[in-house]
Amino acid sequence: MTVGYVHGYSQQETGRLGDQADTLARLLHQGTAYPAGSRVLEVGCGVGAQTVHLVASSPGARIVAVDIAEDSLARARARLAAQAPAARVEWVLGDVLDLPFPDGSFDHLFVCFVLEHLTDPHRALTGLRRLLRPGGTLTVIEGDHGTAVFHPDSAHARAAIHCLVDLQAMAGGDALIGRRVRPLLSAAGYRDVVVQPRTVYVDGARPDLVEGFIRNTFTAMVASMGPDALAAGLTTPDEWRRGIADLHRTAEPDGTFHYTFFKAVAVNPGT
Amino acid sequence: MTVGYVHGYSQQETGRLGDQADTLARLLHQGTAYPAGSRVLEVGCGVGAQTVHLVASSPGARIVAVDIAEDSLARARARLAAQAPAARVEWVLGDVLDLPFPDGSFDHLFVCFVLEHLTDPHRALTGLRRLLRPGGTLTVIEGDHGTAVFHPDSAHARAAIHCLVDLQAMAGGDALIGRRVRPLLSAAGYRDVVVQPRTVYVDGARPDLVEGFIRNTFTAMVASMGPDALAAGLTTPDEWRRGIADLHRTAEPDGTFHYTFFKAVAVNPGT
Repeated sequence: MTVGYVHGYSQQETGRLGDQADTLARLLHQGTAYPAGSRVLEVGCGVGAQTVHLVASSPGARIVAVDIAEDSLARARARLAAQAPAARVEWVLGDVLDLPFPDGSFDHLFVCFVLEHLTDPHRALTGLRRLLRPGGTLTVIEGDHGTAVFHPDSAHARAAIHCLVDLQAMAGGDALIGRRVRPLLSAAGYRDVVVQPRTVYVDGARPDLVEGFIRNTFTAMVASMGPDALAAGLTTPDEWRRGIADLHRTAEPDGTFHYTFFKAVAVNPGT
Repeated sequence: MTVGYVHGYSQQETGRLGDQADTLARLLHQGTAYPAGSRVLEVGCGVGAQTVHLVASSPGARIVAVDIAEDSLARARARLAAQAPAARVEWVLGDVLDLPFPDGSFDHLFVCFVLEHLTDPHRALTGLRRLLRPGGTLTVIEGDHGTAVFHPDSAHARAAIHCLVDLQAMAGGDALIGRRVRPLLSAAGYRDVVVQPRTVYVDGARPDLVEGFIRNTFTAMVASMGPDALAAGLTTPDEWRRGIADLHRTAEPDGTFHYTFFKAVAVNPGT
């Protein structure tokens, strides 16, 4: 059921996810700090881009990080060893739909940029609830490419972004899932679901985000999908080039960029 | 140069603007409080929907409110008399492009939901700067219909919203102006331009905003443009009905709605 990871597993992709996490960490992780001794499971840790921030914000928590890709886990482990050598994380290989933990094993679950890749996020969320003790919390963070709004506006850039939405849909996922997080969590039996928009707005006054978000995160992510978009017949080389160029254009001093992430916290009411 | 006010001047429109201001007031006005004795000009006060919040947040400021429509000014005056009888506001009839005040008359300018309606916002902003003392501030708040993202997603609803963008463009304005606020202010000679996204996110956990924003503000605004959209040949009665119905659908318990306003504060550096 877990679909192919649409972003691929290249070294460049690893770097992109690292840049993204570092620039956006404060925005996304604000409010997430687990008590010392609490049992926390990060689901779909990938290359550890969020894990480094989890251990920084919750130094006393007992963090288990799981991913379906052995190579990603190795990179995550190396990243933690380099960036947070004192942190103790337990690394587990496993599929989000069939995780090797007894019921109620965790006080908190953390799921960031994972649901967008799943064919059946409802089934995944329902299964994850089993791993939470009653009263435990689930935190979900997802993007939504429909919130990407920029200046100068460009039909070419919008078309390039839409290619990502189409590719994600073809792979069984949903790059517009941010807007659906609350109904998904409610339908999966979670209660007290609180969703906050975490909006990134970038203009010439924020050169760190111009570099870290517009160039190194969002445009790099779109650009990395060029071969797949071309192979799927969703664009042409010329159209794609213009789209990427127009996204880079928004990083000029008079450009602006807007994108909203959706962060949800919800409670497992128990059976 | 000032174009026809695309939303019209009906009683219903007056009510819509009142609902909008009350629900969104905290979000939009947060951070705007002018010192006692300071001279403040609200440009394009319309029916006074924002004026009531200005006087509430800045009770000691000397507020002048200007609008191009005599009827709107009368309604604004009546609204203030009813909702803030102790407030003293000076009401002035005038065109934003030719305001009857000497240079440097004001310490602060407040311009909310006005630039979107102008054919030449650059010229308006440049002219307004003349009215500010050196070191005085300009506050601008604008929406951007491109940030409207909702669940369930609907091509019909998106098409209805796009009709508003087209109508505003046909009238010489720009319903996507939020993303352009910073470059507009910089080009008009303002300095220290700081733009913040003010994102409205609504779901079943916020029944006040479901009613106040999804239904009474956004969907009501779109619905009110139906006759114009039909007259302009931008839609059909059936397509329009489906679009409005689908917008209302987002107000159901499992629906969500996202919209970002852009709030800028900038300084007049003087000559």
